[in-house]
Amino acid sequence: MSDPHERRRAALRSTLRDRGLDALLIGDLRNLRYLTGFTGSNGALLVHVDGDDRTVFCTDGRYQEQSAEQVAGLERVIDRASARALAARAAADRLAAVGFESQHVTVDGLDALTRAAEGVELVRAPQLVEALRLVKDDTEVEALRQACAIADTALADLIAEGGLRPGRTERDVARELDDRMRDHGAAAPAFDTIVATGANSAIPHHRPTDAVLRTGDFVKLDFGALLHGYHSDMTRTLVLGAPSDWQQEIYDLVAASQAAGTAALAPGVAVSAVDAAARQVIEAAGRGEQFLHGLGHGVGLQIHEAPSLAKTGEGTLSAGMAVTVEPGVYLSGLGGVRIEDTLVVRDTHPELLTQTTKQLMVV
Amino acid sequence: MSDPHERRRAALRSTLRDRGLDALLIGDLRNLRYLTGFTGSNGALLVHVDGDDRTVFCTDGRYQEQSAEQVAGLERVIDRASARALAARAAADRLAAVGFESQHVTVDGLDALTRAAEGVELVRAPQLVEALRLVKDDTEVEALRQACAIADTALADLIAEGGLRPGRTERDVARELDDRMRDHGAAAPAFDTIVATGANSAIPHHRPTDAVLRTGDFVKLDFGALLHGYHSDMTRTLVLGAPSDWQQEIYDLVAASQAAGTAALAPGVAVSAVDAAARQVIEAAGRGEQFLHGLGHGVGLQIHEAPSLAKTGEGTLSAGMAVTVEPGVYLSGLGGVRIEDTLVVRDTHPELLTQTTKQLMVV
Repeated sequence: MSDPHERRRAALRSTLRDRGLDALLIGDLRNLRYLTGFTGSNGALLVHVDGDDRTVFCTDGRYQEQSAEQVAGLERVIDRASARALAARAAADRLAAVGFESQHVTVDGLDALTRAAEGVELVRAPQLVEALRLVKDDTEVEALRQACAIADTALADLIAEGGLRPGRTERDVARELDDRMRDHGAAAPAFDTIVATGANSAIPHHRPTDAVLRTGDFVKLDFGALLHGYHSDMTRTLVLGAPSDWQQEIYDLVAASQAAGTAALAPGVAVSAVDAAARQVIEAAGRGEQFLHGLGHGVGLQIHEAPSLAKTGEGTLSAGMAVTVEPGVYLSGLGGVRIEDTLVVRDTHPELLTQTTKQLMVV
Repeated sequence: MSDPHERRRAALRSTLRDRGLDALLIGDLRNLRYLTGFTGSNGALLVHVDGDDRTVFCTDGRYQEQSAEQVAGLERVIDRASARALAARAAADRLAAVGFESQHVTVDGLDALTRAAEGVELVRAPQLVEALRLVKDDTEVEALRQACAIADTALADLIAEGGLRPGRTERDVARELDDRMRDHGAAAPAFDTIVATGANSAIPHHRPTDAVLRTGDFVKLDFGALLHGYHSDMTRTLVLGAPSDWQQEIYDLVAASQAAGTAALAPGVAVSAVDAAARQVIEAAGRGEQFLHGLGHGVGLQIHEAPSLAKTGEGTLSAGMAVTVEPGVYLSGLGGVRIEDTLVVRDTHPELLTQTTKQLMVV
């Protein structure tokens, strides 16, 4: 069983057995990709508890050839209404209890499934695949590692070739960074790249404008690469010219907080405790009010996924979880700093995937 | 009432009165943008039947300043769980019957709303805003017009500056087209740009690869610009060097079909009849089996929205609907042609928004 998708389906079956379900109907495209490798924009999967022999995949005619390659080991059905077709199939196969993703299926969608699956009990089964996705397997970590390396290289190139210089706009810099990630193999940016200069760097999720980079500015870059469906996520804050005292002060503070958060990453630790480890560094400096968001989030097939490393986050870390650690301090109207890495929780120290220096870079 | 969002909310209220609803809870971001102009990634709106005085908007802290500008005329609440907060507000305001978007709200989401809206009857109210969005107002048509003009200009530049030449890859061409649309003001490409050369042009939704453009190839370009939330959509198929007989033949056939479909666009015409008008041209030439998809679709805040101009499409056209007309003929392993415009249905002849020539361009 060397195929990771096959292994993941086997792991899911153990959950289905525990819950007394004959099958699980998957319609969410990320979960579908996780379980089959299928990358199209329409599809569904009926994972039978007994094995791949009874598991059925469905997509529409556009993906006939693509799915023949990507989902080679499973029975395939071609139907535009893919989830509904598999609900009907569950009825034809006389399954008794079939789980559905109640966190994704809409109220109207459930009506359609219910009509199609006559005689089948449709059971709410939220987050079953998401629970498996929490801990990344080797194939996933390798995709994240490569996606992070692309972002590292793109930023190094941007800096080396003078891309961050007074007079350029935030928009110009964002486009160059996106282009450089694509040049290095990214399918796309992992999300809308943030470039925020000067006072804009105090806005946590600023979107690039025609604002011009000026000497003395903090420039905050929050960006990532999408590769094989996996997202990298990194923030670096640089300064154009020599940093002033307040810039050096808040930079050092955020870097210390980021190091404390990273040091707290270990199996068994409560996610809220990781947030607290980083947050208390900033609070101790009297700047707790200027750290406006949670510490980090899981990352994988989605740019934001579980676990949430936040005050109100629930649960504990496990080895193999991929998370960001991204404290920030924002001085409204003046400027702000965020430093963010993507890391994998390991039994020993966490594995750092985004390897760009966290020393304050002066360009 | 010069603000288009205010006019749209007033139109929606007339629907609410007809259905006996005290309010409608909107969580879909496109519908939210349509009704308020809000462009953030989290928000909800409770449209009260009595007027804007009792209508409440909610978003989270990230969008506090932005929503103060974009949603100036309405009461605003800041809460991360925006739809749930407004469901609770409906209960606090003692509303009796509140509609919700059952085509967007998930099964688990409805549970959360139900818990929050104690004492309120939550009523399925699908597609109410989408029904209004079918007919575009002047503000919307102007956004579409500009988005289409950006795509026209980007393609003209690409061709004029030699961007389509043997030796380039599909991926290179797609990136240049995307960059040129951004240069001309697009917020982003409206969807993943399709560049398909040679035999790949026979695949309706081919994604750009490292395949190289060669003399004699058909090159199919399907792309659009996103502007102010509105999507343009255009396909042109060009030939590199003089067309061969089969190329000229299927090009002329698709162009004739496209003209027939366009000529059929008028208020009161069944959408299936528009599909038929274009399709019969291709069927009469014995190539009906090679036209693999529907004729077109509505376009606006979504790249694909109602109405569907297809065999199985339901309903009739109205003046002000924006649709694509995009027949294609695909010869597997050899090449294919698709020609697509974005148009607005008018009482007289339709208004053509994508104005690039439909003569076979030889580059």
